[in-house]
Amino acid sequence: MKKADKFVKNAAGRMVPTIINGEQVIPFKGINKYKPAHKGSAPRVPTCIEYPRDGNKIVKNLKQALKQAGLKDGMTISTHHHYRNGDYVSNMVFDIAAELGIKDLRWLPSASFPCHAPIIEHLKSGVVHHIEGSMNGPLGNFCSHGKMKGLGYLRSHGGRYRAISDGEVHIDVAVIAASAADMTGNANGVLGKHPFGPISFSKTDVKNADKTIVVTDSLVDFPCYPWEIMGNDVDYVVTIDEIGDPEKIVSGTTKITKSPDRLLIAERCAKFVEAAGILKDGINFQAGAGGTSLAFVHFIKDMMLEKCIKARSMVGGSTKFLVDMMEEGLTDYIFDGQTFGLEAISSLRDNPKHIPIGIFDIYDFHAKGNMAQMMDVIVLGSTEVDVNFNANCVTHSDGRMLHGIGGFQNCLLAKCTILAVPSFRDRIPVIKDEVTTLVAPGELVDVIVTERGIAINPKRKDLIEATKNSGLPIKDINEIKEEVDQICGIPAKPKLSDEAVAVVEWIDGTILDTIRKVEDS
Amino acid sequence: MKKADKFVKNAAGRMVPTIINGEQVIPFKGINKYKPAHKGSAPRVPTCIEYPRDGNKIVKNLKQALKQAGLKDGMTISTHHHYRNGDYVSNMVFDIAAELGIKDLRWLPSASFPCHAPIIEHLKSGVVHHIEGSMNGPLGNFCSHGKMKGLGYLRSHGGRYRAISDGEVHIDVAVIAASAADMTGNANGVLGKHPFGPISFSKTDVKNADKTIVVTDSLVDFPCYPWEIMGNDVDYVVTIDEIGDPEKIVSGTTKITKSPDRLLIAERCAKFVEAAGILKDGINFQAGAGGTSLAFVHFIKDMMLEKCIKARSMVGGSTKFLVDMMEEGLTDYIFDGQTFGLEAISSLRDNPKHIPIGIFDIYDFHAKGNMAQMMDVIVLGSTEVDVNFNANCVTHSDGRMLHGIGGFQNCLLAKCTILAVPSFRDRIPVIKDEVTTLVAPGELVDVIVTERGIAINPKRKDLIEATKNSGLPIKDINEIKEEVDQICGIPAKPKLSDEAVAVVEWIDGTILDTIRKVEDS
Repeated sequence: MKKADKFVKNAAGRMVPTIINGEQVIPFKGINKYKPAHKGSAPRVPTCIEYPRDGNKIVKNLKQALKQAGLKDGMTISTHHHYRNGDYVSNMVFDIAAELGIKDLRWLPSASFPCHAPIIEHLKSGVVHHIEGSMNGPLGNFCSHGKMKGLGYLRSHGGRYRAISDGEVHIDVAVIAASAADMTGNANGVLGKHPFGPISFSKTDVKNADKTIVVTDSLVDFPCYPWEIMGNDVDYVVTIDEIGDPEKIVSGTTKITKSPDRLLIAERCAKFVEAAGILKDGINFQAGAGGTSLAFVHFIKDMMLEKCIKARSMVGGSTKFLVDMMEEGLTDYIFDGQTFGLEAISSLRDNPKHIPIGIFDIYDFHAKGNMAQMMDVIVLGSTEVDVNFNANCVTHSDGRMLHGIGGFQNCLLAKCTILAVPSFRDRIPVIKDEVTTLVAPGELVDVIVTERGIAINPKRKDLIEATKNSGLPIKDINEIKEEVDQICGIPAKPKLSDEAVAVVEWIDGTILDTIRKVEDS
Repeated sequence: MKKADKFVKNAAGRMVPTIINGEQVIPFKGINKYKPAHKGSAPRVPTCIEYPRDGNKIVKNLKQALKQAGLKDGMTISTHHHYRNGDYVSNMVFDIAAELGIKDLRWLPSASFPCHAPIIEHLKSGVVHHIEGSMNGPLGNFCSHGKMKGLGYLRSHGGRYRAISDGEVHIDVAVIAASAADMTGNANGVLGKHPFGPISFSKTDVKNADKTIVVTDSLVDFPCYPWEIMGNDVDYVVTIDEIGDPEKIVSGTTKITKSPDRLLIAERCAKFVEAAGILKDGINFQAGAGGTSLAFVHFIKDMMLEKCIKARSMVGGSTKFLVDMMEEGLTDYIFDGQTFGLEAISSLRDNPKHIPIGIFDIYDFHAKGNMAQMMDVIVLGSTEVDVNFNANCVTHSDGRMLHGIGGFQNCLLAKCTILAVPSFRDRIPVIKDEVTTLVAPGELVDVIVTERGIAINPKRKDLIEATKNSGLPIKDINEIKEEVDQICGIPAKPKLSDEAVAVVEWIDGTILDTIRKVEDS
């Protein structure tokens, strides 16, 4: 079986496979062009008869649970990444699979991180066939070098939810790390000795998987409430010593940048939002937990105080910074899909205005609307952008896939999407003629803010009109690119072979781009 | 098309149809004998493309929403009954359907009440073909007289949830009354001018219906939170003047009985629970909002105070009485599926330990366990019981179907199920040789408590053993029956024809019993 076969040119002009890991897929047809005509996932109907009469589903260890779940060759195992780089559970699952002699598993994490590097051994030995999910760091590098048996398959957070709910990806065994759980499987991520926040990524997993295993290091009395995971969706409960290290959730984010260039970019984003008339009482906005995003929020905060206005909702990665703003009365609500730091976890647990949100709620494109659409403005970062406003967030300029998609694509539905990027990094231009990997079609990127100027997508005549007398350094994107090229020179193209190593899915389930194997230099 | 066809004798010895309203059904096979081997509901996959870009789904009125939802002949319309006898919305829906000339609708309420009597006209005129759902009062009486075009179909609360989630009943249009909603359809029952409690019954409706309409009389700013109904599951939002009268939620319940006989029954239930060793620290128990049930809780409360113990959870209909107990520290949690009275609604809204629960959570039999199973004791009422511990809660001794099933059948899974009944009512014995309608198979009824004595199911040797020296008046059920018959005489059997008017479904989806047409005297 070929990893990828029968390539065609899709509506974005990218060559993409129509057969991936033996299954037929649909090439990208353009924004809002593909409409599903099928029915969704029809999960197996369980019955209470087959579950313990007293509700006690504890089994002695994870190995036993995986055996009872019927783990076998070729199955799909899902996990979540709320512990990010501090997750212990995923590695355990595949170590046990190896011990049991299982082969050809498909791993469906909501994302993978450097801490999952040990899984490279299982990819080499054939325990894991391929990964469907973002690969941050070593696993992405491994995949980029063409070493994964199957084709990597990158979905946005919303895309993963959609694929499971639509029935495109069937999960055989979902393994859910929970910071607290009771004997029947009611579980959450806000109680216990190592809380990490909401378990937003796993809600569709437990509803659609054949078998669900909850793994916790803090068993509590029934009922474990809030029950983000409901015991009646759970097959087995396992207790282990430590499910993860919450210290490693943050890794490099959650502090306002100190770089003067990035501060300038953040300030310009905020000034643009103000000039465009978006910053109004009752605004709903989203910004990540990275340094530039936090700086943007910091500037917005000052403007809100000055104008005596408040937001209706803010969406994060939620941090102490957002929590402080809510406590100062600057927003009615925080919507939280991923929590960074103990202060934010306490707030999530104790403040009813700090609301855990699911991926369905904010990002699912195959829903009757979603919350990302209702955000007045969202600020995002990128690895590359191009003169057609296309953006890339997964590959570096050398072609290596080292980052995940996260909610990046899903956020493009906001009323105004701003990419906040430096115009170059390490003397390598960020603004290109064409992005190495297409993750965000330019049609949906409204504004690119750099330290050298602000480029507005020509399609957004309203934003151009609204900001024309603002005094902000609004420029043509090509003009900014030329300035950068004069400083950095035109960079060499990455050395890529024809061999596909992974694909990027668009939020509607069609295939947007192909990631190629990196030629070793 | 015959209403009911091809009768067979089921495992309970009851003659039941195998074809109902043109569809094949499965006769009851015995407790825990039927295991589903099929997949569940696969709802149509929607896409954001087809919903308003800005999230605003408000249409001008309910008629417009029903038209846009594509209402047509033969469709299935679902509603919920949280307003109980104060619901205004269901009648509006069928008045509009009549106005639009629609015929042969199937109405799938979570229950219907006397306030829905106007729908009798729509049943007569053919707008509504039949009702699937409990019929309290006039609609039940109408059905009992064989006047409904199709066969009535009674499901327990959990059974209704199961049937929808299993894909047995497909909902074309779900109409959800919500006391507060925002423009995008996020909705709840705890805010707004007429709050009624959780919207627990509708959670599976919105996930599986083709179209969902939220009807509210209190439109609030986005986000309407808590969002028991998530806007991303909603097609249209309609505002009307009044969705219901919360004063009529309570109708006759929620006050401790003053009848000396009923108080005696309640006290004996409590003493039995204590004698059987069930009343322990950390107990989980459920009792309804009726007068006897509340009296039972009152006696349990005194015992808890005396023993210095507290419950882990109490499940109601939740009332001020339960709320007071929680505030006095007598339980850690209230689980609330139906709220009675403003004090309970405030508590539900404001106290994080007062938890709204869904039907999936507590009652779904086709789940991986359910909470009813985990209750140490549940106290229920009945219209009739028999010497084999079978029970009836839907028909009167004259054969008329005047009551719903509610959670009655689902509660039978508790570790100890007690039926608290007077031995006779209006000189008509409650204890029979055989119940008119079988709703609770005797195998699952553990104890019958009357004012003349307590009968323990011979299968529960543990309870017999535990209470043998308790001093409680424990008797053989036949002995109690004889006493009653001596007082009341053997009652005449109800005059019933062979014609089926409705069926009672067991919690696993099989057909437990047939309700026959009442012969007019």
